Amino acid sequence: MARIVMKFGGTSVGSIERIQNVAQLVKGEVDQGHEVAVCVSAMSGETNRLVELCRQTGPLFDLREYDTVVATGEQVTVGLLAMTLQSMGVDARSWLGWQLPFRTEDVHANARIEKVDTAEIERRFQESREVAVMAGFQGVSPRNRITTLGRGGSDTSAVALAAALRADRCDIYTDVDGVYTTDPRMVPRAKKIPFISYDEMLEMASLGAKVLQTRSVSLAKRHNVRLRVLSSLEPGEGSLICSEEEIVEQDLVSGIAFSKDEAKITLLGVPDKPGTSALIFGRLGDASINVDMIVQSRSSGDGEPATDMSFTVSRADLARAVALMEEIKKELDVAEVSFDESVVKVSAIGVGMRTNSGVARRMFETLAGLNINIQTITTSEIKISVLIDEKFIELAVRALHSAFELDAAA
Amino acid sequence: MARIVMKFGGTSVGSIERIQNVAQLVKGEVDQGHEVAVCVSAMSGETNRLVELCRQTGPLFDLREYDTVVATGEQVTVGLLAMTLQSMGVDARSWLGWQLPFRTEDVHANARIEKVDTAEIERRFQESREVAVMAGFQGVSPRNRITTLGRGGSDTSAVALAAALRADRCDIYTDVDGVYTTDPRMVPRAKKIPFISYDEMLEMASLGAKVLQTRSVSLAKRHNVRLRVLSSLEPGEGSLICSEEEIVEQDLVSGIAFSKDEAKITLLGVPDKPGTSALIFGRLGDASINVDMIVQSRSSGDGEPATDMSFTVSRADLARAVALMEEIKKELDVAEVSFDESVVKVSAIGVGMRTNSGVARRMFETLAGLNINIQTITTSEIKISVLIDEKFIELAVRALHSAFELDAAA
Repeated sequence: MARIVMKFGGTSVGSIERIQNVAQLVKGEVDQGHEVAVCVSAMSGETNRLVELCRQTGPLFDLREYDTVVATGEQVTVGLLAMTLQSMGVDARSWLGWQLPFRTEDVHANARIEKVDTAEIERRFQESREVAVMAGFQGVSPRNRITTLGRGGSDTSAVALAAALRADRCDIYTDVDGVYTTDPRMVPRAKKIPFISYDEMLEMASLGAKVLQTRSVSLAKRHNVRLRVLSSLEPGEGSLICSEEEIVEQDLVSGIAFSKDEAKITLLGVPDKPGTSALIFGRLGDASINVDMIVQSRSSGDGEPATDMSFTVSRADLARAVALMEEIKKELDVAEVSFDESVVKVSAIGVGMRTNSGVARRMFETLAGLNINIQTITTSEIKISVLIDEKFIELAVRALHSAFELDAAA
Repeated sequence: MARIVMKFGGTSVGSIERIQNVAQLVKGEVDQGHEVAVCVSAMSGETNRLVELCRQTGPLFDLREYDTVVATGEQVTVGLLAMTLQSMGVDARSWLGWQLPFRTEDVHANARIEKVDTAEIERRFQESREVAVMAGFQGVSPRNRITTLGRGGSDTSAVALAAALRADRCDIYTDVDGVYTTDPRMVPRAKKIPFISYDEMLEMASLGAKVLQTRSVSLAKRHNVRLRVLSSLEPGEGSLICSEEEIVEQDLVSGIAFSKDEAKITLLGVPDKPGTSALIFGRLGDASINVDMIVQSRSSGDGEPATDMSFTVSRADLARAVALMEEIKKELDVAEVSFDESVVKVSAIGVGMRTNSGVARRMFETLAGLNINIQTITTSEIKISVLIDEKFIELAVRALHSAFELDAAA
């Protein structure tokens, strides 16, 4: 007998028929003798509808009231799923954030979880193996008001519940059947990864693989919750995200990720004196603009010592970032500000590269062999990212996928 | 300064524009210096949508889960109204049943209210005159689960809140501008009644005037809450429902009510022995069939002593009631069972008739003058009802409305 948390997103519970499908999957686990807690999102489209209603009330809405309104989406789903399970003969009851309680800090629309009280769920597991159907995305604040965890918060709810229950694993059901070595729409020979470490998954998630929220993966890592990603529509084992120690055979590189949401800003002839970088990136930080890859090099010009500087931001932030740099240009007497929206980031990820130094070399040689110019490089312990011209994205991703021996057998 | 509870039904909050209109009405009272609590229903159509979702999960749904689902309708409205009030510069917050708490018994879908805790609302009235926006229709059970009060329960919520707050009055905003002497669609010269007693309103409500739920009126009577019925769309004073003592000048008859939802069942030749009535009406009661007017008279036939018996039921219950009577016919050896669906009930209501015996006579004379045959009569202290052929309904209601001097000036 195992203790399992199952999480279903909005698409999986988007209609009564789909809720019945979910109930069948839950019943399958119950019939095998497992203790099951389920965590669900709002029916697809419902959260957007509620957010839009809030938006129409005026521009300055109170986030406490916003949370009261949007949390109803999950409240409807848990009731419907509990009823559906009961109609299949499975003992079940719904739990709202305030009932459990699922305690969060006193912040609205984006609250952090503080403590999940699962005593009553565990009592009922023992008593009658009653399935706990928990509303995802929501909690209750110290002031007894409904809070929400922010978009995608249901994954985080599920992991927090699994941690509190010391569950054997947390199964995240979604519309894909696992984590792939790269996006199968770009590389048809992409393979499903059976095991992947938390750190690799964190890099994959933050690099644009949209399977899981970064926040839920880092929570799973902290509490050592074994996460499984699998499809609610097709049977299969999915991908297991777990600690490195659990994975017997590590590939050198586990996956190739890419992001098209990149824009590069370049400042030429920045006066080379202390505090310049702090000023530039401080100004961007104040404007809540996330900066990713940063490169600095000595200017080739004559006269006063100066540097050239490049960094990337998301394309949505580009216009604001450029406006800020134009201000700084005047203040600091920078020679020139330019930007480039036609860049993409391609990354190789793998815990194996901690112990093998050949990864960077193989990556650069592969790109050089295709005459692809690397504009910027950043690395972490388990990741190498390069910025290249967007026209080469498919070529680069496919070549790297082959170079690191990730292609599925033809 | 007064303390006021304002209640708005589903039609009044059916869109963001209508919620803004409601917020304006609330702001009007706040601007006059009053302490205001608002009680709202779900947006029109929303409760039906949620009930339908529950129904689709299967035939035997758990009413605890049903309550969890349907209570979300009011939860959305309170959040939206609080936000709208804030955007108009009015300090406001939403209250859900479990937050107040609004305690009910441990019964679902039709719970009775046990205790409404308004301490925090009153503290906030004193502190900042913050408007309390309470979710109607819902409460919380001793087991910490969401309960609902049954259809139309928001009126009852508002009255219970007004009672707990010892409010100066409870204003029920609806789509009509008050209580009328009869249905204006049938009698164009019907008048709005400025003051009406609880008892009269109870008779009006139970006789088909759909302005207020009977349950909310009897709660108002018990706690002496002054109830005002008025329109959320047109300004006006509406009708005040209060104790008889407050009404200086009582009309003999306050209104003429009628019900088209009547069907008459007649049993001829019922053996006249003890226990027969108990058996007949016990059987109907077991089947949850409400019986209204009952008449019994001695059969005119020879032989064994026997009686004839007539009673009315709602038309929806007729088929079931007739089937039960056919069973009883065999058991008790009743001569004949017949029924008539073409009957209606017309009633004159007025506390004035307690001290004036001429009302019945004037009623019967008026109908006799029109050659309308009275099939059955029932009376209470403040009401006389007659059962007549449905083809005479308009004629009878208009004639009685004139006879009791209720017509508006032409």
